[in-house]
Amino acid sequence: MEAFAHQLQQLAKVAVHVGLGLREGQELVITAPIEAAPLARKIAEQAYRAGSPLVTVLYDDEANTLLRFQHAPESAFDKTPKWLFDGMAAAFQSGAARLHIAGNDPNLLQGQNPESVARANRARSVAYRPVMELITTHHINWTIVAYPHPAWARVVFPELSEQEAVQKLWEAIWKASRLDTPDPVATWQAHNQNLSMRVNYLNHKRYSALHFKGPGTDLLVGLADDHVWAGGAVQAKNGAVCTPNIPTEEVFTAPHKDRIEGYVRSTKPLSYQGSLLEEIEVRFEKGRVVEAKAKSGGEVLERVLQTDEGARSLGEVALVPHSSPIAQSGVLFYNTLFDENAASHIALGQAYSECIEGGSQLSPEALAAKGANSSLIHIDWMIGSSQIDVDGITESGQSEPLMRAGEWV
Amino acid sequence: MEAFAHQLQQLAKVAVHVGLGLREGQELVITAPIEAAPLARKIAEQAYRAGSPLVTVLYDDEANTLLRFQHAPESAFDKTPKWLFDGMAAAFQSGAARLHIAGNDPNLLQGQNPESVARANRARSVAYRPVMELITTHHINWTIVAYPHPAWARVVFPELSEQEAVQKLWEAIWKASRLDTPDPVATWQAHNQNLSMRVNYLNHKRYSALHFKGPGTDLLVGLADDHVWAGGAVQAKNGAVCTPNIPTEEVFTAPHKDRIEGYVRSTKPLSYQGSLLEEIEVRFEKGRVVEAKAKSGGEVLERVLQTDEGARSLGEVALVPHSSPIAQSGVLFYNTLFDENAASHIALGQAYSECIEGGSQLSPEALAAKGANSSLIHIDWMIGSSQIDVDGITESGQSEPLMRAGEWV
Repeated sequence: MEAFAHQLQQLAKVAVHVGLGLREGQELVITAPIEAAPLARKIAEQAYRAGSPLVTVLYDDEANTLLRFQHAPESAFDKTPKWLFDGMAAAFQSGAARLHIAGNDPNLLQGQNPESVARANRARSVAYRPVMELITTHHINWTIVAYPHPAWARVVFPELSEQEAVQKLWEAIWKASRLDTPDPVATWQAHNQNLSMRVNYLNHKRYSALHFKGPGTDLLVGLADDHVWAGGAVQAKNGAVCTPNIPTEEVFTAPHKDRIEGYVRSTKPLSYQGSLLEEIEVRFEKGRVVEAKAKSGGEVLERVLQTDEGARSLGEVALVPHSSPIAQSGVLFYNTLFDENAASHIALGQAYSECIEGGSQLSPEALAAKGANSSLIHIDWMIGSSQIDVDGITESGQSEPLMRAGEWV
Repeated sequence: MEAFAHQLQQLAKVAVHVGLGLREGQELVITAPIEAAPLARKIAEQAYRAGSPLVTVLYDDEANTLLRFQHAPESAFDKTPKWLFDGMAAAFQSGAARLHIAGNDPNLLQGQNPESVARANRARSVAYRPVMELITTHHINWTIVAYPHPAWARVVFPELSEQEAVQKLWEAIWKASRLDTPDPVATWQAHNQNLSMRVNYLNHKRYSALHFKGPGTDLLVGLADDHVWAGGAVQAKNGAVCTPNIPTEEVFTAPHKDRIEGYVRSTKPLSYQGSLLEEIEVRFEKGRVVEAKAKSGGEVLERVLQTDEGARSLGEVALVPHSSPIAQSGVLFYNTLFDENAASHIALGQAYSECIEGGSQLSPEALAAKGANSSLIHIDWMIGSSQIDVDGITESGQSEPLMRAGEWV
């Protein structure tokens, strides 16, 4: 237990000093599953020690979420606590930083009515949009870290007892988050430096498209005009330097929403708001999904695609080497924060304005004119593996090898 | 464990059907200590079964509150999550009901800097005022129920192990909340009927003052012009009939803020936001506290009185017979929800507008002209016991015995 408490403290330090880059005097809003209270408290302590005047923790209780789907009337699911999201937006607008602790039950809503789940998700996305905007435009510094929720651990390690599964998941989070070093904060500074070099190389190249090729996949992803590659640390508009995901291994940019062609097969299951989507297969024409199926979760996928016009195009393309510690662990985390860092991936939905040059100053229309996609959703899914090659396509149409068998060339 | 789950469910039913009188289609906001999650979930389930579309639980984590006082910079304590309180006010304004689960650690903040605690409380009171207004004016239906928080149980039963203390506190809550009957909802309907008869008697009498007399106490509490006695169930402005406290044994009204004379000694300790105030002794002149001391917590009392002008006068006077199940239990709960129902009491601070005829339609100035007190605080403390007599003073100045040795005459 003492070792665990020490490890939580190490993660809390990385979360506050690397993840958030929390500034002295800055308020902090934490959202966390109720099971993650031990980590939320360690983070609150580190935030106060770093000079934060106020840490507010909004605990999410999945048990209540499930009770709603089990017992609420059918008419319930278009309601959402907009007043709470408006409050969060007000907090961020007045300068608070944001930390989310990931770690939910991937199977929570299996067996519930998919239509109700979709309606609830849509209502939430609409009401949450002002918060999402402040986050995706880096109005504030923010980060996401993970905690080994017991129900999550049972899904990742179904063959183990709950206690063993939690222990094993924690070890996996620990290693994947690069915390197994004498000075994790220094380790993260060096890692962010490496990602920054990769980002600079790609920004120098200015490819017009990426070409993914492998089993079940032959996909040309056009890149947005004036696209910018990003990865690792980010300077938020308030000046703070944050690392939005702990762990992070990706470099990513904005596709051109009208220039995506071909077909692609997911290489890892996607856990999306309580449902599991496996072996997604999608075909694009002129940037739009025109065919979609999945071995499991196909109905959820179909509803996701119907969210709005932008849900049928891409808002992100990201490159991750197969040698990342997460891929090497061989663990399927059933959680995007980890699995997206085990493999190259694409995201349906909203693009990040930071991935367009001067994007945070541009109107939605100007962003769209450059090819940046707009949607209520942003859902990453993994298309990379040790069998996938990636080429960069130059302005003049030449192919340059970027990744072979999942590794940087 | 199964018996406990069943008992929680019984309490949840009383909370939803008697406490809240929740209406079909009505949203619900629950505030609860994180330790009370098992009860919050049972209440959410009952609310959904009763037709609520959305139950939002805001968990309060006292561990984080304590960490703030231990580690935050000195300048922190004037900050408060106003954005969250504004959000709650918006929820209530749009029709949500409100349920609070009581049960905190009475000693949480002992040893912390009382000045910081007072500043934090004051900042919170100011920001929370819009919520408090909606509650005290019965804009919405609301209720408070209790859960046996382990730290609370240890204070109430310091001689027992934590597990035994929690069990014993739960039994005490169970009995005090009149749940030890075959049909607790019916029991509560009958109890509310009894309180209503007592209220009608006092409203018919129209006393101009109450006179409390006993060891350390000789206090004349003038009653506000057009005062109204209340107790038990209340019809909120939205039409729902709620019982704001489970348990409740009191009948209460508004004192006249300028007509309180004499001295009074508290008969039970008062647990106030983490501090314990014992043997409070106060002297009133022309409605204002002119002398105040306490055997413990005197500094906290002094700061409370300095909150604002209204903090030095009274906003409530309440009569509770010594034969109430709570008094009979002999348990000192260190929690106002219970202890105020074990004894007649007074409250420093804000008056309830429901205790003035047509009060919810009156301006603050009109309420003040009738003698209703106004303040950021409302703090009940117990002045009744088996040694206290209470007389009603008629308009013509005659004394009529109301209570003798703590019992209704």
